[in-house]
Amino acid sequence: MTEIKTMEFKDDILYLIDQRKLPISYEVFECKDYRDVDFAIRDMVVRGAPAIGAAAAYGVVLAARELVYKGKDEFLLELDKAMDILNKARPTAVNLMWAIKRMRQVVEEYKGLPPEEIYEKLKEEADNIYEEDINTNKTIGKIGNTIVPEKATILTHCNAGALATAGFGTALGVIREAFYSGKDIRVYADETRPRCQGSRLTAWELKMEGIPVKLIADSVAATLIRDGKIDVILVGADRIALNGDTANKIGTFMLSVLARTYNVPFYIVAPISTIDFDIKSGDEIVIEERSSEELTHIEGIRIAPEGIEVYNPAFDVTPHENITGIITEKGIIRPPYMENISRLKEA
Amino acid sequence: MTEIKTMEFKDDILYLIDQRKLPISYEVFECKDYRDVDFAIRDMVVRGAPAIGAAAAYGVVLAARELVYKGKDEFLLELDKAMDILNKARPTAVNLMWAIKRMRQVVEEYKGLPPEEIYEKLKEEADNIYEEDINTNKTIGKIGNTIVPEKATILTHCNAGALATAGFGTALGVIREAFYSGKDIRVYADETRPRCQGSRLTAWELKMEGIPVKLIADSVAATLIRDGKIDVILVGADRIALNGDTANKIGTFMLSVLARTYNVPFYIVAPISTIDFDIKSGDEIVIEERSSEELTHIEGIRIAPEGIEVYNPAFDVTPHENITGIITEKGIIRPPYMENISRLKEA
Repeated sequence: MTEIKTMEFKDDILYLIDQRKLPISYEVFECKDYRDVDFAIRDMVVRGAPAIGAAAAYGVVLAARELVYKGKDEFLLELDKAMDILNKARPTAVNLMWAIKRMRQVVEEYKGLPPEEIYEKLKEEADNIYEEDINTNKTIGKIGNTIVPEKATILTHCNAGALATAGFGTALGVIREAFYSGKDIRVYADETRPRCQGSRLTAWELKMEGIPVKLIADSVAATLIRDGKIDVILVGADRIALNGDTANKIGTFMLSVLARTYNVPFYIVAPISTIDFDIKSGDEIVIEERSSEELTHIEGIRIAPEGIEVYNPAFDVTPHENITGIITEKGIIRPPYMENISRLKEA
Repeated sequence: MTEIKTMEFKDDILYLIDQRKLPISYEVFECKDYRDVDFAIRDMVVRGAPAIGAAAAYGVVLAARELVYKGKDEFLLELDKAMDILNKARPTAVNLMWAIKRMRQVVEEYKGLPPEEIYEKLKEEADNIYEEDINTNKTIGKIGNTIVPEKATILTHCNAGALATAGFGTALGVIREAFYSGKDIRVYADETRPRCQGSRLTAWELKMEGIPVKLIADSVAATLIRDGKIDVILVGADRIALNGDTANKIGTFMLSVLARTYNVPFYIVAPISTIDFDIKSGDEIVIEERSSEELTHIEGIRIAPEGIEVYNPAFDVTPHENITGIITEKGIIRPPYMENISRLKEA
């Protein structure tokens, strides 16, 4: 298995694979302070809900490092501001807010200690978030593999892979586990306009590991689903509401309608940290709108008329009734979601 | 109204707007013989079912022009070969075969005349096909406008515009007619991967005429349809079977499923020449697969890993049960399609 190191924190530098450059070139983006991390999240150097969470946690560590020579009051005040900034880098993925919340709890718990020691505690917590994510994904892979047939054609959308997480991936983690457990699988990867995470990232990840993969335009999936060519659909998530409604990359909802119409199992694959226990339904999820250039330009080249108006939401919400199950590290959540997700919160 | 001259035949040269270059540059592609026309159709210098038909007819004229100094037997033999070649330039749009068939009938009828006179007859027939198409589209526009509400948001896919026809357009012809008749309309144009006819051509055509248009990624349409943001969907067609099944640009089928699920009227807009009276259902339609480069490269720049496998069908088939009506120059065909389309053949 090829190991894809989406991020690495070493000597107070966060190294990120620059996902804007893949698959054409493999470049490493260095974050030397939290502002670099904020930029990296905003500009999608790093993307994918769990990866954003882990990167943001290291962003807090870098902020603490920079502030460690200040007096305690100033340290806490400035650190708080930095966490506010990181918390707002992107609006939809709840893992970002979840990771910042964990870092805030560490500050709260250890605020009596000198800044240098708070910094150490924050670094430990960021390492925990990072390592937990990889372990969580490996567990999710094993659990998810139970629903993958021995011989299966799997459709996936966007990139819920090693690159979207600290490592191993969620939807692609299940695919990896199925492949390495010896199942005869092949994958269709949706291109995923406008950012083409399918062609740029998923195709790259799977091809690197020798997992059979074919690239399709997003709208081709419909015919494959109707014609019985897809056994199961596996996608990631950016935020899951209490009732099971799930925000994920734009295009996911469309697939879910096709899956429901033609009775193809449709699974969300995500860690528990992607569940927002504070919201009852998908109606409460803020959908990020991104720059029109994502549609009008590719690699800096214009492909649409100058001045054309664009509507470019980055995510959509798949209603819970279209979801066969949500594969998490604590098992596969099935309907009724409100009941079964609420129970997880209490646990 | 801006007049877009998709093609012009003058002094034995067929001038085509080079649709591969729009909207970045407006270039004219000159076809001096039928081989140039064959290339122009294959490489999508000209595209759109009715436009392909008219261009191919002029291709036959150019072949006749070139052969006019040969002896009669050789003239007829070589002309026949040229028509065979043009007939196969692309497989899905039936208007191509329809136009070549009309040209063959002219040759059959006038084969007793000298080549120079056959050439004249062929030129007359090509001009007829060209002019009939524009008039047909204007009639379709008026008929189609009857189903457009006074205030309407219309979704369209690919380009069924002036550029896809001899002029005025089919789906965009209805939109033009609605706009110029004073209705308060706005249009969402699907980008239409992989060739981006929506962003390159439809957005360009509508913007040129001041018709309000917004560009979206193909998968965004699903959310708009669900959320009641679309009043009617209008798309073109490349081939319609007797039972109403319709081949059109990849992505059309997906829209039709969403439309049916969320009760949005879904209309095909096409001339009668798009109906293939020889086939009973969409199962008999050959779907063209195009080069993988359409997905892996944009403007010559690679956006997917080297050597990645691709599945790239250019069209899909929308089953008749998803179609609200087929808007033609002879009225709006409604279900039951088999009965109502067969009746048109007899007429």
